[in-house]
Amino acid sequence: MSNTVLTIDALHERVDAIFRKAGLNPIQASAITRVIVAAERDACKSHGVYRIEGALRTIKAGKVEPNAVPELLPQDAPALVKVDAKHGFANPAFELGLPVLVERARSCGIAALAINDAVHFSALWVEVEALTQAGLAGLAMCPSYATVAPTGGNRPLLGTNPFAFGWPREEQPPYVFDFATSVAARGEIELHRRAGKKLPEGWAIDVDGRPTTDPEAALAGAMLSFGGHKGSAIGTMIELLAGIMIGDLTSPEALDLLGTTTLYPSHGELIIAFSPQAFSAGRPGNPLGRAEALFEAIVGQGARLPSQRRFLARAASERDGISLSAQEIEQLDRCLEQGLDGV
Amino acid sequence: MSNTVLTIDALHERVDAIFRKAGLNPIQASAITRVIVAAERDACKSHGVYRIEGALRTIKAGKVEPNAVPELLPQDAPALVKVDAKHGFANPAFELGLPVLVERARSCGIAALAINDAVHFSALWVEVEALTQAGLAGLAMCPSYATVAPTGGNRPLLGTNPFAFGWPREEQPPYVFDFATSVAARGEIELHRRAGKKLPEGWAIDVDGRPTTDPEAALAGAMLSFGGHKGSAIGTMIELLAGIMIGDLTSPEALDLLGTTTLYPSHGELIIAFSPQAFSAGRPGNPLGRAEALFEAIVGQGARLPSQRRFLARAASERDGISLSAQEIEQLDRCLEQGLDGV
Repeated sequence: MSNTVLTIDALHERVDAIFRKAGLNPIQASAITRVIVAAERDACKSHGVYRIEGALRTIKAGKVEPNAVPELLPQDAPALVKVDAKHGFANPAFELGLPVLVERARSCGIAALAINDAVHFSALWVEVEALTQAGLAGLAMCPSYATVAPTGGNRPLLGTNPFAFGWPREEQPPYVFDFATSVAARGEIELHRRAGKKLPEGWAIDVDGRPTTDPEAALAGAMLSFGGHKGSAIGTMIELLAGIMIGDLTSPEALDLLGTTTLYPSHGELIIAFSPQAFSAGRPGNPLGRAEALFEAIVGQGARLPSQRRFLARAASERDGISLSAQEIEQLDRCLEQGLDGV
Repeated sequence: MSNTVLTIDALHERVDAIFRKAGLNPIQASAITRVIVAAERDACKSHGVYRIEGALRTIKAGKVEPNAVPELLPQDAPALVKVDAKHGFANPAFELGLPVLVERARSCGIAALAINDAVHFSALWVEVEALTQAGLAGLAMCPSYATVAPTGGNRPLLGTNPFAFGWPREEQPPYVFDFATSVAARGEIELHRRAGKKLPEGWAIDVDGRPTTDPEAALAGAMLSFGGHKGSAIGTMIELLAGIMIGDLTSPEALDLLGTTTLYPSHGELIIAFSPQAFSAGRPGNPLGRAEALFEAIVGQGARLPSQRRFLARAASERDGISLSAQEIEQLDRCLEQGLDGV
């Protein structure tokens, strides 16, 4: 079957219509749509159209407030911005906090945005990229739900806890990375299971804490952190900073509350913004120019900068539109027609 | 030969005397001594007495300013603290900035200390621990010199770039990790070379970019990042934030300036402090209490918290004194008697 090409705007309209019909208010619908469309635009299928059904299931299960209007909370500490997502999705809460975070980072040098009581559906790269568009560096992290055993342990406790960073570049896409602090994303294990393939060594342990390459045993057991004890320590740090410190749920608490990993979890998120201008003031050299020399040295020895595949796909989508498979188009049609009844 | 036991204070006096005699002013001598003694107290030999000779060599080579008096720079941005180390060691610059960083983190919620023009001799855990003693969480990072190839590359570019984090705990030692973002520290490869042992797979590449387990080939080639492309991305982030953003040298620049990895390098450092009290204000639960539940869940499944070996050694040293080998005592005596002539 042939693919269908949609403009970015046309895909936005179709996805937005699905969420509005499913009962999300315009603030929730448009923010979640922007993330899904950005992912499809960047050929980042893991956060694209295929996630719509999960969001609809989460709405249907009553695990997200469809009419939430996020609120910017009054704040005494000048470098902190706090947004209460009001049990809606994290995305509109981020969009509400972003301009204030940018302003605080510029005036304070460094600032942080804490999002609370959010249903987490996003890719963190969208958020650190938004900071780089304002000329800032950004770091974002959040818990998820308990699926990863700490190194040396044998049971799920940590989340896959994504960690993302962005650095602004002039006249080209930013330096951005965004990765799970587990070896693999849970979805990758699920894909191996469906394909009847064994997992690579080192991805997971079974219920008894023994290394396993069997996807079924891994899903019943626990995933492992990337980079052994170091990645496990970073995953723990994310539970502490982006869960406990901001007064929101940790990954085990988020899983306990939800009782499943098939819906989107409720927890918070921490985003830190840095002003390279404020940090480098009075020092020799222009930080953005100097960073280019570092990137050239990386690329010059044959290594790649992260996210380059996404940026190439983005340029193609902006030029040629987004190509969706017949199956994806059918999924969009079904989600619009059947709404919450279809999931 | 039998070991000699010294009290913590007695070891401090001996090390301090060495550095004063070698020409460091009291500010430099006492701050660098505190780090060395803290490392010996914690049985963290990699930062202990054996490092004195490297510091003396750096002084003798004229690569550190022995009379430097670090200066706190006036600062418009309320959440930034900047200390000019004046080409002295980083340690007294950190000690000067620490109380201001603590005060700013408490009032702003989050704050950062940038140390510039420092000769870097330290373990970052000392610094994040100092923040936890003030009830704050802390994150510290710095470049080093170019010895690590970015993933997919074949030449040294990144440093071993340490990354440290601390979280305060009541009535017990803090949660602290501090690790190189390379698979191994450069010293570990040197130890394998001396012992005539092969390296584990995945530590290093040779000059042609091929994986090697030969320590000589590794020292001529490049080390690898921990956790593959994810660790490499974190190492790059550290070059950007704690090198370029703060207007100080990157690891390749630090190596170019010094021309050797046998002296301590000159670069900057970034320390970020978070106030859990400010972040959690208005939210349910006490963050320090909630963190204990997470730590219990980690330990309860047989996993370890980082730094526990150090804290056990510390308790023993505080009770029984620090035990030094005859060789270490001889080294202290020789460093005191011969000073810069002995290195």
